[in-house]
Amino acid sequence: MSKMLEEIRQQPEALSKTLQQEWKGIEKLKKQFEAYPPRLIVLAARGTSDNAAQFGRYLLELLTGIPVSLAAPSIYTLYDRKMNLEDTLVVAISQSGESTDTNLVLERAKENGAFTLGITNEANSTLAKLGHASILVRAGKEKSVAATKTYTGQLMAMYLLAYALGAKLERKQLETLPGLAEKALKLEPQVAEIAGRYRFMNHAVVVGRGLNYANAFEFALKMMETCYVIAERFSSADLLHGPIAMVDPHFPAFVFAPSGVTWDSISQLLTRIDSTTHESLIITDKSNKAAFESKRRAFRIQASIPELFSPIPYIIPGQLFAGYLATEKGLNPDQPRSLTKVTQTL
Amino acid sequence: MSKMLEEIRQQPEALSKTLQQEWKGIEKLKKQFEAYPPRLIVLAARGTSDNAAQFGRYLLELLTGIPVSLAAPSIYTLYDRKMNLEDTLVVAISQSGESTDTNLVLERAKENGAFTLGITNEANSTLAKLGHASILVRAGKEKSVAATKTYTGQLMAMYLLAYALGAKLERKQLETLPGLAEKALKLEPQVAEIAGRYRFMNHAVVVGRGLNYANAFEFALKMMETCYVIAERFSSADLLHGPIAMVDPHFPAFVFAPSGVTWDSISQLLTRIDSTTHESLIITDKSNKAAFESKRRAFRIQASIPELFSPIPYIIPGQLFAGYLATEKGLNPDQPRSLTKVTQTL
Repeated sequence: MSKMLEEIRQQPEALSKTLQQEWKGIEKLKKQFEAYPPRLIVLAARGTSDNAAQFGRYLLELLTGIPVSLAAPSIYTLYDRKMNLEDTLVVAISQSGESTDTNLVLERAKENGAFTLGITNEANSTLAKLGHASILVRAGKEKSVAATKTYTGQLMAMYLLAYALGAKLERKQLETLPGLAEKALKLEPQVAEIAGRYRFMNHAVVVGRGLNYANAFEFALKMMETCYVIAERFSSADLLHGPIAMVDPHFPAFVFAPSGVTWDSISQLLTRIDSTTHESLIITDKSNKAAFESKRRAFRIQASIPELFSPIPYIIPGQLFAGYLATEKGLNPDQPRSLTKVTQTL
Repeated sequence: MSKMLEEIRQQPEALSKTLQQEWKGIEKLKKQFEAYPPRLIVLAARGTSDNAAQFGRYLLELLTGIPVSLAAPSIYTLYDRKMNLEDTLVVAISQSGESTDTNLVLERAKENGAFTLGITNEANSTLAKLGHASILVRAGKEKSVAATKTYTGQLMAMYLLAYALGAKLERKQLETLPGLAEKALKLEPQVAEIAGRYRFMNHAVVVGRGLNYANAFEFALKMMETCYVIAERFSSADLLHGPIAMVDPHFPAFVFAPSGVTWDSISQLLTRIDSTTHESLIITDKSNKAAFESKRRAFRIQASIPELFSPIPYIIPGQLFAGYLATEKGLNPDQPRSLTKVTQTL
């Protein structure tokens, strides 16, 4: 079995540990933010962590009303621009904690007067000690080059950060997440079986909206890294602004379809795709009755999941799919060509 | 001749008109911002205009030090979240001025206390009248579905906005832009000739960094819309964080290679691509001697262009290329399948 699959299965435990072991620190951080509430949040990351940041952008704006910006690292690293970061919270996210450019962003932000926070899987890394505070992802060492358990761990860290910033979230709500991940993992046999259908798939498009927009990027990244599938990723709205022109029958769509406010838009897009290619696969759960009971090809999670808590369970069938598809294609998902675990760029 | 090519050629004039006719309004806006300087800028847009926003994000942070966030429209439109936008400038960008969701973002932002600004090509549109202020792109009616002259017009609007926000920019510097666009247009015969090589290209990756990151998105979008080429777009740093795994000889790289601080990173990426596929085409100018005089396949603009002013001339060979490639492929670039000029999404 690949390390990737092993690590995918470790997610309920990793989520649980992160929540339990970080809670005390989060309560402390909450007091700090009550005394000095930030007016702006800047998130800096690369690769999979950048997808977690994309999720954080939606979650934090939605639950706190504080505007969030995804940092353009080169502004800090290459252009060396002094930014006005008064009353700003700057967060760097990195699995290894040794990503040169995100660390440099955090350092510069500190010099520019920001309150800084590191989110990493490695307690002894540079990043864990660099900021004014840190949140540790308690996922255990990640051995596969394709990040899985650290991604969902970073999403959990984002919920914790939202709580610290005053979001109306309760610990017991977050405690449902490991169980929902467990339910998603039950799809493994079905995912393994369907992967064969995609043995000769060369391209795909992954669609998500709102809180699941980041998952579209992450699912696509997993397929690019481990299966060399050319995977586009879009929100349903952006896809209709141009790129829909290129979707044809050789171009299946993988679509996140939770319940809630994004469903109308997603549903319209599915109707549009049906009229051209009929080749889609949706990821959904019991709370979206229309999607769950439709005849579409689907990964149906056997649970009723509020949209707010859908991103962690929803990415899991995507991770499993990438892992099994790599095997179908005769590839080793743990060792993608041209990649190493720690990527250093400036 | 396609309308797209006609409109590509109109860009020097459109840029010149936008600069001349908007300057007075910009000086007024500058006084306003001197009295009430914004502490945060939020940019909202879709499609090509979102690529102009991406450019604005880099340009405005770089020249003003004010943090910039690209809005997630669904936060305002679908989730209906009340945001804390005190001392915030919110800018909506839309060619037609009738993009439902970006207009709604501006309306909500106004209700939430932001100073609001519309950037559009249509003086009589909803957007032109919606905000506290507006900047008009004076490109004349755009008939082709593929936006070209309104994109560079929107980039010009971003320079004007940067000036209004106190950037060290002079009018005479901006007056060089129409001439640089003229120089870029001189590449047309060479672009037309080389397009044949790519007749059977199905995928591509477009790479840009810093100020030209947005151009990577825009060049890719033009190829997706008009040629149905599956065009990935990345910064050189992000490409190395995973997706490089999928680059193979059937996957040519189009790379923006201006002089300045991004060249080291771009140059390293080119060396990496050379070691695997040797199939790249760079866009460069005389100021980047190493790139300009290299033996690489290249669109060489015969001018010496400071990086700060490279994005407008640099996108032009990309636009021309998409237009000529569509013709080589037997497609009509003015009427991409599944697309209309005004896209309304929520």
